[in-house]
Amino acid sequence: MLNKSINMFKKRENVGEIEEGNLLSPKFDNDGLIPVVTTCANTKEILMHGYMNVEALKLTIETKEAYYWSRSRKKIWHKGKTSGFVQKVKEIRIDDDQDSVWLSVDIGDGASCHVGYRSCFYRSIPFGDSSASTVLKFEEKEKVFDPKKVYGDAPNPTKL
Amino acid sequence: MLNKSINMFKKRENVGEIEEGNLLSPKFDNDGLIPVVTTCANTKEILMHGYMNVEALKLTIETKEAYYWSRSRKKIWHKGKTSGFVQKVKEIRIDDDQDSVWLSVDIGDGASCHVGYRSCFYRSIPFGDSSASTVLKFEEKEKVFDPKKVYGDAPNPTKL
Repeated sequence: MLNKSINMFKKRENVGEIEEGNLLSPKFDNDGLIPVVTTCANTKEILMHGYMNVEALKLTIETKEAYYWSRSRKKIWHKGKTSGFVQKVKEIRIDDDQDSVWLSVDIGDGASCHVGYRSCFYRSIPFGDSSASTVLKFEEKEKVFDPKKVYGDAPNPTKL
Repeated sequence: MLNKSINMFKKRENVGEIEEGNLLSPKFDNDGLIPVVTTCANTKEILMHGYMNVEALKLTIETKEAYYWSRSRKKIWHKGKTSGFVQKVKEIRIDDDQDSVWLSVDIGDGASCHVGYRSCFYRSIPFGDSSASTVLKFEEKEKVFDPKKVYGDAPNPTKL
């Protein structure tokens, strides 16, 4: 599926070129990963924060569907392959120093979070009140799907 | 400034509690950092992707202004202290496994990017066309400020 003959990425040689140029020179960290923020193209909400390796970024660019690197399963992850909630890419952006990616996607009425909510960011942190303890508020009230029905007995990717 | 007497963070002991509970148990990586995505509360665009350490997250929660950990300068970074574009926090969210933070902020007509653009994500990556080389498209046409006037000869935080 991946067309390995295309050399999509330019070597990082010059800060000016990386910031002001028009060539793609993504920076992968010591683990070979680049952080990715995925938003809903319709609602603009953040759906998830994940990571890509070289192959996942190339696959996403080529196939118009979001691929990530699963740090818990240690493999390429075609998002939605199990749940059915594939992410159709609407826009891909890269930041100034090219060390993070913004993916805007269409998931219809689907969900993005393995816990069952639409967005992984379903809880807010109270702030500005130094007196109270920090009790999270659920901003999403209902799950979109039942994770037990979708994932069965698959291991939970959340790690302590 | 930081009220160290408040124990804001609960120890991570139980996956169910982390995902479905209402206590804040952020996961900091091996470098003591948690990734943070910052969006504009008005336009909903992503302004930047950064990192916080424990102190930066506590300061942000307490002061209602965004603090980060600068990986290039290796110190706490009160965003906007030099440029004047302080980020006033409107909402803070945490994701399912509590290893990333979403900050929604007000920056008025200001900017967030040290290159001078409003958002750090001022370029898009073409996708779905496997034939062409990858030439980035500038989605922002004009800088909000001149970085030379604002930062002078301060070292550029972008690293190869």
